[in-house]
Amino acid sequence: MNTQVVLARRPSGIAAATDFRIERSAVQSPGDGQILVRNRFLSVEPAMRGWIADTVGYAPPVPIGSVMRALAAGEVVESRHPSYAPGDLVTGWFGWQRYATVGAGAVVRTVVERDLPLSLSLGVLGINGLSAYLGLTQIGQPVRGETVVVSTAAGAVGSAVGQIARRLGCRTVGITGGDDKVLQCLEHFGYEAAFNYHNTDLDAELTRACPDGVHVYFDNTSGSISDAVHRRLALGARVVLCGTAAISDWTTWPTGPRVERHLLVRRARMQGFLVFDHAPAFESTIAVLAGWVRAGELRVAEDILDGIEACPDAIAGLYRGENRGKRLIRL
Amino acid sequence: MNTQVVLARRPSGIAAATDFRIERSAVQSPGDGQILVRNRFLSVEPAMRGWIADTVGYAPPVPIGSVMRALAAGEVVESRHPSYAPGDLVTGWFGWQRYATVGAGAVVRTVVERDLPLSLSLGVLGINGLSAYLGLTQIGQPVRGETVVVSTAAGAVGSAVGQIARRLGCRTVGITGGDDKVLQCLEHFGYEAAFNYHNTDLDAELTRACPDGVHVYFDNTSGSISDAVHRRLALGARVVLCGTAAISDWTTWPTGPRVERHLLVRRARMQGFLVFDHAPAFESTIAVLAGWVRAGELRVAEDILDGIEACPDAIAGLYRGENRGKRLIRL
Repeated sequence: MNTQVVLARRPSGIAAATDFRIERSAVQSPGDGQILVRNRFLSVEPAMRGWIADTVGYAPPVPIGSVMRALAAGEVVESRHPSYAPGDLVTGWFGWQRYATVGAGAVVRTVVERDLPLSLSLGVLGINGLSAYLGLTQIGQPVRGETVVVSTAAGAVGSAVGQIARRLGCRTVGITGGDDKVLQCLEHFGYEAAFNYHNTDLDAELTRACPDGVHVYFDNTSGSISDAVHRRLALGARVVLCGTAAISDWTTWPTGPRVERHLLVRRARMQGFLVFDHAPAFESTIAVLAGWVRAGELRVAEDILDGIEACPDAIAGLYRGENRGKRLIRL
Repeated sequence: MNTQVVLARRPSGIAAATDFRIERSAVQSPGDGQILVRNRFLSVEPAMRGWIADTVGYAPPVPIGSVMRALAAGEVVESRHPSYAPGDLVTGWFGWQRYATVGAGAVVRTVVERDLPLSLSLGVLGINGLSAYLGLTQIGQPVRGETVVVSTAAGAVGSAVGQIARRLGCRTVGITGGDDKVLQCLEHFGYEAAFNYHNTDLDAELTRACPDGVHVYFDNTSGSISDAVHRRLALGARVVLCGTAAISDWTTWPTGPRVERHLLVRRARMQGFLVFDHAPAFESTIAVLAGWVRAGELRVAEDILDGIEACPDAIAGLYRGENRGKRLIRL
């Protein structure tokens, strides 16, 4: 039997546990060209909020009554596709369910790093690490000696951005939402400065931590955190827009201080980034990241919940800021 | 005797006529390394508002009691610098005055297009044409077949942007602030579509005029015009931030709809542009623009006021939208 987490209704704002229901059904046998995957880890992403919302986004919203769209990592248990064999480990769009019967188009990649924990293939060796590396290097283009500021600095993407920027010779400054996360930033992820936006004067902290201004801002939040960073942009700064975690709802479009004058006076650039635009670079980038993980040079924090019953509340939990690293559901 | 327009007090918002006073004084003889320029044309720019304001900008604000900072074009009447001789035509930071005694650092360039009207050296062959060409090509990077939207489409910069974009094979859409300017855009500057933001539903017009979305937005305004364009950005769009004419005051920072989500979902880029960052490209660009002007392929509109007495109200007039082309003061 299969167990599936189904979208029960269209949430208003952040998806709540009550917007989902858990269903049981028969496992579907793979048809020609399909594979049957037994999911081991289900991913929980801030972006899921956008996959459900009925607004303009990257892809059509998840239909009501459908299995929740999600990346997952699992093992091929049956294959009717020549590229996959039972025992292969794969990641892909397998959804919040125990078993997925999918075509090859749903597979993101075959996991070749079998010496490393499979969970990493959804985080630092998955779209989080790829977003961090490719967003930072392709859009942020940091130069040795520059100051890189990261919002959600202890999160799955942010923690990797901070460490990669430091490897590239930059000063790294992390903004996060908890005192324990500040400690994690400083001691675990090597930020040179970090602070909790809840209990600090952001303008004062940024002025102190970024005496030459902010050269690269890796923005996972938008909102008032970003407003403070925009005021400190250096000449020629680059802002990587990777997520908008601080905005709970775009159906009533939020307002904020206008950015045009900051960007104009500083001749700065602000650019949206979506990791899937960079698919040709995935394998080579994962090889680099895996090498750093093996060498202990890229540290990872995971926030693993057990059992598919943890799914419905998991997105809301992210937005409550309760995770301490990449959030996953272990089956 | 010299006549000078002096900044009398720090304006609140747009500079009014009463923020200046006209003074007479003796003409200063040039010292060693200096030249004496008799100004023929004084420039009036929307950016002057920023040169006076006591806020963070490109340069320190014009001090109270000083000659108003301005670009001007004139003739060298006396020279104690080896690079300049009496009779040379030059443009530079000569200020709102009849005579300027300056060092070589104040000269932007020697005007070599002596077959063309000197007034053009402050407009289409000066920073306006340079901003249009370099902002569009370096930051906007338009590709044949794309849709380019221009705000202040009939202005000194905008009218050149529209014509250059059309030469590059783009569809051009102009937004302007008067029905006569709409006509000017369509009949004089070759826009394929143009409309008056005062009496139209901008969202509806943009949807009609830009069925594939907006690939390049050359933004001279910020404000609600830009907000409407941001909602129509195409995938991978580029926004060139060249001016913020629609915002009368940044001392109380204005708010507007947040741009982050638009840029993120469309993987679009927004970047500030200052023409003086591109000085090495000035001479070669002016040669190209002058060629087009001579061939009648780049059309120009000028709005020339006579006499230095026209200076004090000239900036406010720009913001009232009364000019029909590049505004200049002829002495």
